[in-house]
Amino acid sequence: MPDDSIERQDCPPMRPAVSRRALLASLAAGAGTGVGVALAIGANDAAAPPLVQSAETPSVERFYGTHQPGIATASQRFAVFAAFDLETGDDAGGAPAGARVAVNFQHLMKRWSDVAAALMAGTPAGPLPVNRAGAPADSGIADGLAPSRLTVTFGLGPELFDRIGRNDLRPKRLRELPAFSTDRLQPAWSGGQLFVQICGDDPQTISHAFRSLRGRAPGLARLRWSQQGFLGRFGAATARNLFGQKDGTANPRPGTAAFDDAVWAHGDEPAWFAGGTYLVFCKIRMNLPKWDTSTAREQELAIGRRRDTGAPLSGGHEFSPLDFSSTGPDGRPLIAPDSHLALVRDVPMLRRSYNYDYAFQVAADPADGHHADRPGHSHDDPLHDHAGAGHDGYDTGMLFCAYLRDPADFVRAQQKMAAADRLNAFVEHTGSAVFAIPPGVQPGRPLAAALFPRR
Amino acid sequence: MPDDSIERQDCPPMRPAVSRRALLASLAAGAGTGVGVALAIGANDAAAPPLVQSAETPSVERFYGTHQPGIATASQRFAVFAAFDLETGDDAGGAPAGARVAVNFQHLMKRWSDVAAALMAGTPAGPLPVNRAGAPADSGIADGLAPSRLTVTFGLGPELFDRIGRNDLRPKRLRELPAFSTDRLQPAWSGGQLFVQICGDDPQTISHAFRSLRGRAPGLARLRWSQQGFLGRFGAATARNLFGQKDGTANPRPGTAAFDDAVWAHGDEPAWFAGGTYLVFCKIRMNLPKWDTSTAREQELAIGRRRDTGAPLSGGHEFSPLDFSSTGPDGRPLIAPDSHLALVRDVPMLRRSYNYDYAFQVAADPADGHHADRPGHSHDDPLHDHAGAGHDGYDTGMLFCAYLRDPADFVRAQQKMAAADRLNAFVEHTGSAVFAIPPGVQPGRPLAAALFPRR
Repeated sequence: MPDDSIERQDCPPMRPAVSRRALLASLAAGAGTGVGVALAIGANDAAAPPLVQSAETPSVERFYGTHQPGIATASQRFAVFAAFDLETGDDAGGAPAGARVAVNFQHLMKRWSDVAAALMAGTPAGPLPVNRAGAPADSGIADGLAPSRLTVTFGLGPELFDRIGRNDLRPKRLRELPAFSTDRLQPAWSGGQLFVQICGDDPQTISHAFRSLRGRAPGLARLRWSQQGFLGRFGAATARNLFGQKDGTANPRPGTAAFDDAVWAHGDEPAWFAGGTYLVFCKIRMNLPKWDTSTAREQELAIGRRRDTGAPLSGGHEFSPLDFSSTGPDGRPLIAPDSHLALVRDVPMLRRSYNYDYAFQVAADPADGHHADRPGHSHDDPLHDHAGAGHDGYDTGMLFCAYLRDPADFVRAQQKMAAADRLNAFVEHTGSAVFAIPPGVQPGRPLAAALFPRR
Repeated sequence: MPDDSIERQDCPPMRPAVSRRALLASLAAGAGTGVGVALAIGANDAAAPPLVQSAETPSVERFYGTHQPGIATASQRFAVFAAFDLETGDDAGGAPAGARVAVNFQHLMKRWSDVAAALMAGTPAGPLPVNRAGAPADSGIADGLAPSRLTVTFGLGPELFDRIGRNDLRPKRLRELPAFSTDRLQPAWSGGQLFVQICGDDPQTISHAFRSLRGRAPGLARLRWSQQGFLGRFGAATARNLFGQKDGTANPRPGTAAFDDAVWAHGDEPAWFAGGTYLVFCKIRMNLPKWDTSTAREQELAIGRRRDTGAPLSGGHEFSPLDFSSTGPDGRPLIAPDSHLALVRDVPMLRRSYNYDYAFQVAADPADGHHADRPGHSHDDPLHDHAGAGHDGYDTGMLFCAYLRDPADFVRAQQKMAAADRLNAFVEHTGSAVFAIPPGVQPGRPLAAALFPRR
């Protein structure tokens, strides 16, 4: 039940008191440009209504720690995922390109770690490196907004370690995912050397955080792709995906041995990676027209659970143990062997996925004239198969996130699913990426600083 | 202060008691497929945790009334806007094409009115017309979710009245917007015969509502464009746009004569349109890289208000009267005559806009191969002017919504702005549309039924 604390944290009677430290830090930074709980101090404020709402008490997640935030954190309601690639460093300069890239990487990790720590605490991120004299230090779009459980999580892609000359310290299980027969991957939505996951309960603080992080990349790294997701306000209940199913029922619970075993890195990894994990990210497009016009029986057989209650088809309730041996009147297993549930059941991982619904906006682009003369060309027929329509498609589905100690476990499950999963008829993987998620950050030492030990 | 009631309605101690009627209606509909507060009643429910969270008490807006909902309603946090065009009706059939289109229009209004009323009340919408035997009546993606102040608002475009043979009943002030010199309009994001605005505090209930409405259009109308917006959780404070400015400070307050005068239709309109209004909708792309690297002084001069407090540059606080005569030490007006504030000040209207941040996703499309080989091509340079980059652009800005009694007032202001507004350097209009928003719906009579009086 990843959303356990969301509603509670939204509501004053159950929220912790306002973070006095965040408020003081913000005041100390001053200048009226702070984000989060910052007060806008202006010449005319005597008569102005206060910007900080008492009902807007922030709920603040910790940036520093053994593990990065945004993993064991109860799922927030909104997320942005983005991948960046380091700049090639082929401009004029003194150092050899390879060394320069490594230095650039360290600069970026320093900037990003500082920004993430500040924004998560509800304090100002400070001016952009590119700002000119007189430019405001911050966009101000989150002025007066609480952090709303903002978390920022960073990852490192398989290509990165070679680029920065640290292949010897590369986490052992970090390698590109193999191709699966059911993939329909788009390079523009796949891969990446650097990864950022920004989660929170307010999309505007997320938009602000992404703008603040992205604004510190120029010259060091360039954006490769980004995706945006949401979860409905299901409170303590398991959130439903856009097939209407409860998603995440089988997740291990943070704080248990099962969670630690499933998520945090094996002991045989490089020492610097202790406390780290891996993320498998997939953009999975759902064929909603096909799904919505299939029968309830087809849907439930594909999943192996009841759509309404989430109970396994072998009986019981959402959290009942699975019984793969029990059979129906026809002698066949109640949970079909080629159901999604049967195929993925033995992969220990934390699913921390988000729904996405980009609707029709993807198909219309201002510089892309071939739509201008034919708006509305038959997009709304639910019997038409949009999933293969690409540019004409209504793009809706799941941003699948699995945190786990060994991506090979995911690969094995995915190979089984590619071969047999009944769900394949309804989904296609259009983007994928894998990242090593370094351990948490300590004050004064940026993310992944251990890759460049002080000599 | 359009968001006044959002936070209060989110939190149990200030919320009204659960809608017993909605719950009973949902139970009566039964079958475990209900949306909103519906209970999923399954064979194994005895041991299952309840799906309805007591902390999830719905906040329900009224669909029926003198005016449509979603106008005087305090702004919700999320919105989807979509335009549809009626099908041409050129398939085989008995009636002449024109008459068939009019009948199709009435069918669609009946379906949509029924769905909107049901979903806003938190009751099931019923099966899709295209469902085959055995298909679930509903996608179930909103099972267990409260309506979260869901509103559905419908509009009729200028072309529509000719298409349905009712030009004699066309609202007097409904005509296509003229071209403005600063437009960079894309046909694929503009116009439309039918309009739907769906607002609410939970994006998943909105996704569900849109899917439910769109699934009832095939054969009758086809989707033309859709857009998605959000507002930060600013509580009682005026929401900030993605320039960091407070937006909507000057809005008339619902329930006042100023509001009624600004919004609801003039008395000289066709009788059936009493209680209606007009909507001017613009997709306004903001050039954030340019904005973020301009000076604070340039930003404030362009607007005419302080960025941090929202106070006019003539002094005072956010809600102080504007003083266009007061001058600075240099003898020039403190509020520049070509500032946005000076140019739009005399247009009575209700601004009910949303921010949008589509990030980078628009640029990547699976069927659109010309990005596949060059992911990340220099998108992240904040000094680069993305606004004109079209397909390569990071698409972020405002979905401007103005409800007003006469679109010509908007046109006049827009012409002045096109000629002089300092903001033009930072924004471009990439989509626009105008709609007549019919009066509210009465039970048993679908939206705009008065266009086809019973004989």
